[in-house]
Amino acid sequence: MGGNKMATKKEISMTGFAIVAYAGDAKTDLIAALEAAKKGEFVHAQKLVASADQAIAAAHNEQTKLLSKEAGGEDMDVTFIMVHGQDTLMTTMLLKDETTYFINEYQRIDKIEKQLGIHPTI
Amino acid sequence: MGGNKMATKKEISMTGFAIVAYAGDAKTDLIAALEAAKKGEFVHAQKLVASADQAIAAAHNEQTKLLSKEAGGEDMDVTFIMVHGQDTLMTTMLLKDETTYFINEYQRIDKIEKQLGIHPTI
Amino acid sequence: MGGNKMATKKEISMTGFAIVAYAGDAKTDLIAALEAAKKGEFVHAQKLVASADQAIAAAHNEQTKLLSKEAGGEDMDVTFIMVHGQDTLMTTMLLKDETTYFINEYQRIDKIEKQLGIHPTI
Repeated sequence: MGGNKMATKKEISMTGFAIVAYAGDAKTDLIAALEAAKKGEFVHAQKLVASADQAIAAAHNEQTKLLSKEAGGEDMDVTFIMVHGQDTLMTTMLLKDETTYFINEYQRIDKIEKQLGIHPTI
Repeated sequence: MGGNKMATKKEISMTGFAIVAYAGDAKTDLIAALEAAKKGEFVHAQKLVASADQAIAAAHNEQTKLLSKEAGGEDMDVTFIMVHGQDTLMTTMLLKDETTYFINEYQRIDKIEKQLGIHPTI
Repeated sequence: MGGNKMATKKEISMTGFAIVAYAGDAKTDLIAALEAAKKGEFVHAQKLVASADQAIAAAHNEQTKLLSKEAGGEDMDVTFIMVHGQDTLMTTMLLKDETTYFINEYQRIDKIEKQLGIHPTI
């Protein structure tokens, strides 16, 4: 066993660390985008979402390579770091999808508040 | 090793692919539901959520069978495709829970906008 | 193989069950917090978020111990229950981050509705 493995456990864990790092950067940008939208800074929020997109694409590329190798019949040792990488990426991709709707709602709430002369204190 | 395994690596990966497909369909429905709610089409949004529920139930059933076998003492080979299936299902189930609150907020924002004569342009 | 393993498959699965339980409790609190915010009960919502924080910290501590052991070179058998634990924790942590923004939006919608004399019937 192991002789014809094309990816070692260590290599797979390194991929896991890389995905955690990329997806972690993207998550930081997305939370900052939500904070910006909360304060009515919508242009800044959109810039942060675009920045997150790039980090997500890099992380997604790493995951896809690994899944393709396994689907192609390669024997891969699953490690907890790599599982954590996949989790971090998938939750960050979900946050990305939802951020669109949070920002849209904040824009509409902001418009209503301005029309009513309400200044959010939160 | 492997002689008394009741589920092979290939069978487990097939389950993973099935879960990715079911949960992926559910996610597509849920994002479409959020788009519908954003546009004020709340009846359509609820229909899409109901459609997602069915796909989630099918995927959840597959995952539960696998977890039950392992909890029952069966030796199972973890594969990245199956890990990806579990991730896809769990993030889609979270999206489902949150969609309820997004739709509720959109309904309330829509009602306020109508009362104020605001037409959302976003 | 397995002779120098410091964590057995059974021990790892027990950690998985513990994480599922802690993170499951936290998720229940967070969904209850969203329900409270939907009804305008914001003090109660914040208490539920604080309760969720404690359960998340306990679950996160378990996951970190495991990831640290593996990163330290220990050979760990990945099990589906533990993968499910990691998924449950990561999706619950995402829900926690997003709950902040759902509650903030509900507070602002509530204030607008009160000013306009709208009573939400949903």
